[in-house]
Amino acid sequence: MTPSLPVVISVPDPSYAAPLGDIDGVEVVVWDLSSPHPRAAEVRLVVTPYLNSVSLPDLAPQVPALEVIQLQSAGYDHYIANVPPDVTLCNAAGVHDASTAELALTLTLASLRDLPEFVTAQASSHWSATTIRPALADKRVLVLGYGHVGREIVSRLVPFEVEVTVVASRARAGDDLVPQVHGIDELPELAAAADVLVVIVPLNDATRGLVDAELLARLPDAALIVNVARGPVVVTDDLLAECASGRLHAALDVTDPEPLPEDHPAWTTPGVLVTPHVGGATTAMRPRALALIRRQVEALRDGEPLVNVVNG
Amino acid sequence: MTPSLPVVISVPDPSYAAPLGDIDGVEVVVWDLSSPHPRAAEVRLVVTPYLNSVSLPDLAPQVPALEVIQLQSAGYDHYIANVPPDVTLCNAAGVHDASTAELALTLTLASLRDLPEFVTAQASSHWSATTIRPALADKRVLVLGYGHVGREIVSRLVPFEVEVTVVASRARAGDDLVPQVHGIDELPELAAAADVLVVIVPLNDATRGLVDAELLARLPDAALIVNVARGPVVVTDDLLAECASGRLHAALDVTDPEPLPEDHPAWTTPGVLVTPHVGGATTAMRPRALALIRRQVEALRDGEPLVNVVNG
Repeated sequence: MTPSLPVVISVPDPSYAAPLGDIDGVEVVVWDLSSPHPRAAEVRLVVTPYLNSVSLPDLAPQVPALEVIQLQSAGYDHYIANVPPDVTLCNAAGVHDASTAELALTLTLASLRDLPEFVTAQASSHWSATTIRPALADKRVLVLGYGHVGREIVSRLVPFEVEVTVVASRARAGDDLVPQVHGIDELPELAAAADVLVVIVPLNDATRGLVDAELLARLPDAALIVNVARGPVVVTDDLLAECASGRLHAALDVTDPEPLPEDHPAWTTPGVLVTPHVGGATTAMRPRALALIRRQVEALRDGEPLVNVVNG
Repeated sequence: MTPSLPVVISVPDPSYAAPLGDIDGVEVVVWDLSSPHPRAAEVRLVVTPYLNSVSLPDLAPQVPALEVIQLQSAGYDHYIANVPPDVTLCNAAGVHDASTAELALTLTLASLRDLPEFVTAQASSHWSATTIRPALADKRVLVLGYGHVGREIVSRLVPFEVEVTVVASRARAGDDLVPQVHGIDELPELAAAADVLVVIVPLNDATRGLVDAELLARLPDAALIVNVARGPVVVTDDLLAECASGRLHAALDVTDPEPLPEDHPAWTTPGVLVTPHVGGATTAMRPRALALIRRQVEALRDGEPLVNVVNG
């Protein structure tokens, strides 16, 4: 009996190779895909780098044995059109959930509890006078989008003594976190009772521009909009108009355009907090990415189904 | 049968009077205690103002019928020595728990997720480059102090995919949130495995200076200290030395001295985030204060035991 050849996979940097080195029947090579690699012809699964995008048309001729492209992002729009024939494209759904949900809470709390004001006061060594400021406790929070990240956001919100309502594309039964999932048709009505609106829907034709002047106008005075989805889900000019007037507040990890140019009014509109799309890029990513890659590699080796397949 | 006279209580401002106006057999007068009040002689329960302290020796002669002083703070050190004979002093334990626990999470998340850096970048309209930054997820969090607020902090931490350990003055069995409560004697050993140390012990002889150079030295590199207890629990100079060297980080809602003078190095030490003791002063306070006052007033009216008694 001939021992079968190891499954060769590539990972983008050495920090991924060592933790995966113990998988039986798998050989891990380090390849960031930016230049040719001597083992390229043997590689059956490629893990793409996280922060640099890859040209699949340039890659394909180098990897004739390629079966799987494993992305490290949840988004895959840039890749889907160029996947070589018979290659499976897998995204990293799940890998960034904890980190993104955590940022949603960070932005919500920082904005409500006036962190930006205190950071500014600290820069001038000023101890601000005590006044009664907003808390998250007792707020009515509407989470727009109830996929994996939406659920992680809700699980983190629940202990804060808030009233949480969730909206998804279709109404459905609730779960252990919420009594029901409302349908998108109820959004205008629910917005009227939302002190905080957290946006975490995927960007598609149905959600582009969903948070527009009409929806924003339904929010109560002093409401906070938190966007950790994609910039174009919110109509930037409409949101900034409501913030400039002082009626609403916003905390945005994603913007439209993105990155924000230096002269964009979002930087300076009162009541707007901006972070530069940092929802996913944290230390929480690597262990979750490694767990996903391990699972995929073992599936490939054993001829079992892959997860997170996005092209078929 | 003569109807009994109503129990007269005073509250510090009109916003408290209306929500309490429906209690049978109780009359609410508005009195901020800063000047004499025509009904003072009838008042049996005084609710003190939150943000201004009251001189009990000045107050006592005006309120011969006084039975209960209901504070709006958890702290009562300033009052305990001057309570008139036969008067019961009650603190506001519980009223600020949600708000303070919420700020502990706010400071932890803001500090780990680099919010101060992003606020500063926003002020110069700068979109920071994406790099891998710390997350709360996967961190080992040691909560020092496991009273009411400590428990509220832990309940909010648990969904963040962290490993939570708690230390109190005495070891005891755990509860639905933690498998066990460690004793203070284990603190040095536990500190060595704490990525985040949240301080929420009361200030007393056993806790003054508890977080000193020796304990800080045991924390791993890059650990974050969050103080929402009282400033003097931490030796400020020792903490700032560890932050100035870049080894540790800190997020402080309480400081020693407090307020921080303009020339204090805490304002400018790298990796230190300061908020000006705003843990309790939020919109979460009033509904919880009103619920406590209602309970106390009904107990006084009915001859039932008061809660939160701190003088006997």
